[in-house]
Amino acid sequence: MSNDRIVVIGGVAAGMSAAAKAARVKPDARITVFTNEIYISYGACGFPYFLAGEIENEAKLVARSIEQFRAQNIDVRVGHEVLKINPADKKVSVKKLGTVEEVDYDKLVIATGASPFIPPVEGVNLRNVFVLRNMGHAMELKNYISREKPKNAVIVGGGYIGLEMAEMLLKLGCKVAIVELAPQIVPNMDEDMAAILKEYLEKNGVEVFTAEKLMRIEGREAVEKVVTDKREIVSEMVLLAVGTVPNSKLAEDAGIELGIRNAIKVNTRMETSIPDIYAAGDCATVRHRLTGEDVYIPLGTTANKQGRVAGENAAGGNAEFAGVLGTGIAKVMNMEIARTGLSARELQQHGIEYVETVILARTKAGYYPGSEKIYIKLIAGKQDGKLWGAQIVGGAGAGKRIDVFAACMHLGATVDAVQDMDLAYAPPFSPVYDAILVGLADLQKKLKRV
Amino acid sequence: MSNDRIVVIGGVAAGMSAAAKAARVKPDARITVFTNEIYISYGACGFPYFLAGEIENEAKLVARSIEQFRAQNIDVRVGHEVLKINPADKKVSVKKLGTVEEVDYDKLVIATGASPFIPPVEGVNLRNVFVLRNMGHAMELKNYISREKPKNAVIVGGGYIGLEMAEMLLKLGCKVAIVELAPQIVPNMDEDMAAILKEYLEKNGVEVFTAEKLMRIEGREAVEKVVTDKREIVSEMVLLAVGTVPNSKLAEDAGIELGIRNAIKVNTRMETSIPDIYAAGDCATVRHRLTGEDVYIPLGTTANKQGRVAGENAAGGNAEFAGVLGTGIAKVMNMEIARTGLSARELQQHGIEYVETVILARTKAGYYPGSEKIYIKLIAGKQDGKLWGAQIVGGAGAGKRIDVFAACMHLGATVDAVQDMDLAYAPPFSPVYDAILVGLADLQKKLKRV
Repeated sequence: MSNDRIVVIGGVAAGMSAAAKAARVKPDARITVFTNEIYISYGACGFPYFLAGEIENEAKLVARSIEQFRAQNIDVRVGHEVLKINPADKKVSVKKLGTVEEVDYDKLVIATGASPFIPPVEGVNLRNVFVLRNMGHAMELKNYISREKPKNAVIVGGGYIGLEMAEMLLKLGCKVAIVELAPQIVPNMDEDMAAILKEYLEKNGVEVFTAEKLMRIEGREAVEKVVTDKREIVSEMVLLAVGTVPNSKLAEDAGIELGIRNAIKVNTRMETSIPDIYAAGDCATVRHRLTGEDVYIPLGTTANKQGRVAGENAAGGNAEFAGVLGTGIAKVMNMEIARTGLSARELQQHGIEYVETVILARTKAGYYPGSEKIYIKLIAGKQDGKLWGAQIVGGAGAGKRIDVFAACMHLGATVDAVQDMDLAYAPPFSPVYDAILVGLADLQKKLKRV
Repeated sequence: MSNDRIVVIGGVAAGMSAAAKAARVKPDARITVFTNEIYISYGACGFPYFLAGEIENEAKLVARSIEQFRAQNIDVRVGHEVLKINPADKKVSVKKLGTVEEVDYDKLVIATGASPFIPPVEGVNLRNVFVLRNMGHAMELKNYISREKPKNAVIVGGGYIGLEMAEMLLKLGCKVAIVELAPQIVPNMDEDMAAILKEYLEKNGVEVFTAEKLMRIEGREAVEKVVTDKREIVSEMVLLAVGTVPNSKLAEDAGIELGIRNAIKVNTRMETSIPDIYAAGDCATVRHRLTGEDVYIPLGTTANKQGRVAGENAAGGNAEFAGVLGTGIAKVMNMEIARTGLSARELQQHGIEYVETVILARTKAGYYPGSEKIYIKLIAGKQDGKLWGAQIVGGAGAGKRIDVFAACMHLGATVDAVQDMDLAYAPPFSPVYDAILVGLADLQKKLKRV
């Protein structure tokens, strides 16, 4: 038998990236993608904007169509659920409507994604309790919003999706309350930075309840109110945005080793514990470039990169994944938040001694119209001055500055090594000392005092 | 005599940075700044925006006042011209109105800036021929524009200032023509990238005449027309923006060695060839971090950094300048242009073999409102894959991406080393693969084919 039958399970970011890459590396490979969804290759990160009506229709979110993949010799089967992987015989059992088919593979890529975590409380099955993870969820929520025009919404979870959705619902005329269990919103940032954002949200009319536990959701058929350990909030809808769990059951049942947070354990080549089976994207672990540890940080950008690596290797190539820094970014109204590397909290958990600074600067020259505040928090190793983390909160133009820190950390830079970099200056873009340089200089000063 | 009398010549970016830094390092130093201007510490890069009325008044351009410097124990003397430096006696001759005073120094910082280059043609002394280098120039031009409301303007020179001013004059209702001697505008970028901008300018109503030589300016008293080697352009005003020459005569007369382009030669500590005399900013050379060569690239951001180094060392500290990459950025209407490192042309001049790519991507997710085109040109060493240069032309959000390349080059990265960096992704900020990664991946592919 020729070694060219590649089966991919999952049709979104990682799955379609894997298929497309495999087809480029090995144009004569027989590649089949099975997905239990109807839509493929869509940008899930665009859902909030789709819901707010800023993106015309759902088709705009689709990067490439089934026909486009087919032209690349990739057979995409939507509405096909893979029930079982049989590594011994190198087969998968695929269900379409009532029938189950056995399909051979030479190489298998698992890209089954993740599911929203559903808090174990009463009332989550009431009508108008939503989650937002796949296109089906987005369509459901969109239909509800158009039809019912809700006036009150509770968002459970103050992470990126929760915050983006708070903005959208507010724009749609909703009164919005966020309920977050942790003592702060954006739990992947430090509390000092999250506090700036919280104040901003509250100023702009979002109620933010941190350190507050969802107890239950009440209503006859549909949501009527949300009960926390501190209050009751009258609301017609609830969005649960409290994180995700990897879809790793299929892999686990096949005897594939799971790793942190029950994600499918992969190495830098995206190989699982079973030969010829790869995993990529939100169902899989990923190596953190700074700590060398496996982490579970499901993000679209990582899913795409891991998918490409899995696809290349499944097609006989030799690719390695560079690892992540935990970079993240979000826009919430006119505020941008971003982070990369480890937070102070994470460094404490790792027992790494650090020095930190938070600076306040401007996004553009102070005299230039539209110049806004930018806060940057920087963290470095106390002994070696290695740059460990960066966090940004600020106005337009603030967020993407995180990429400069990501580049420095990707290259393992110390704070000393990146002082006075020749960053671009003109009044519409930054003050004469970019906020990045202000932060780095301040951190260097603090390191010297240690 | 105590070793604490620091004299600074020049009151703008480098000079005031030097004075302020020296005062911080050595609070009991006696610091005197002499400037022949009236304004100090102003952001010259803001002039175009001031002229367009986007910045209320000239006071907004001033970072710190004389009183603020005085509070820091810095004596600022405006309207004082230094006529002569006498290194043997460690004195400077300073003229104020009719009187000349001899002033002692222990350490001297020369920050005399640069002057606009005036092309040696007939008519440059006519009324309504302007240059734009210091606050006096800006005020003069502003007064003229308010008073005369010109309808036709010719800008000689298609560099950053020429382009920024073209936008401003257009906004003020002027018909604008740019005359550039070189075969392209923005001569510090490559022709392929400059061509994109040229097309954009022309689409937006600016006439752009490249490879065209200014022959003379005609008029009785004031400008009436501009004559090039190819045409005559009727115009009421001319802005000469054809580069700058360092104000190094004072230093040269004192026996201080000059370097490239007649700028004052300094080492990485900002020391000139004569002990206890430093130079910084637009009058001085600067070390290019990639080539190790001295270059003359007068920019505000470099002037500030060099000023700080000179000030720290003059105050007995031990600072070194990290060198420049030739990073530059400008906004021209809704187009952003930026560059860092060496252009293909510069690499050819250095006899360095290179591989290059130009990619077209989007500033934001394709489906996100306001997503615009971004072109990135990347250049790497043919043999070692070292990243040598980056150039960007694109819509809002494009330009500052140059900083990521500047960081990579500052750290001496190869193209291989920075593949698949964990850059920030969310639809309002970038497609799932940032344009930076698209460019780097494409360049890597081309390098592999070599």
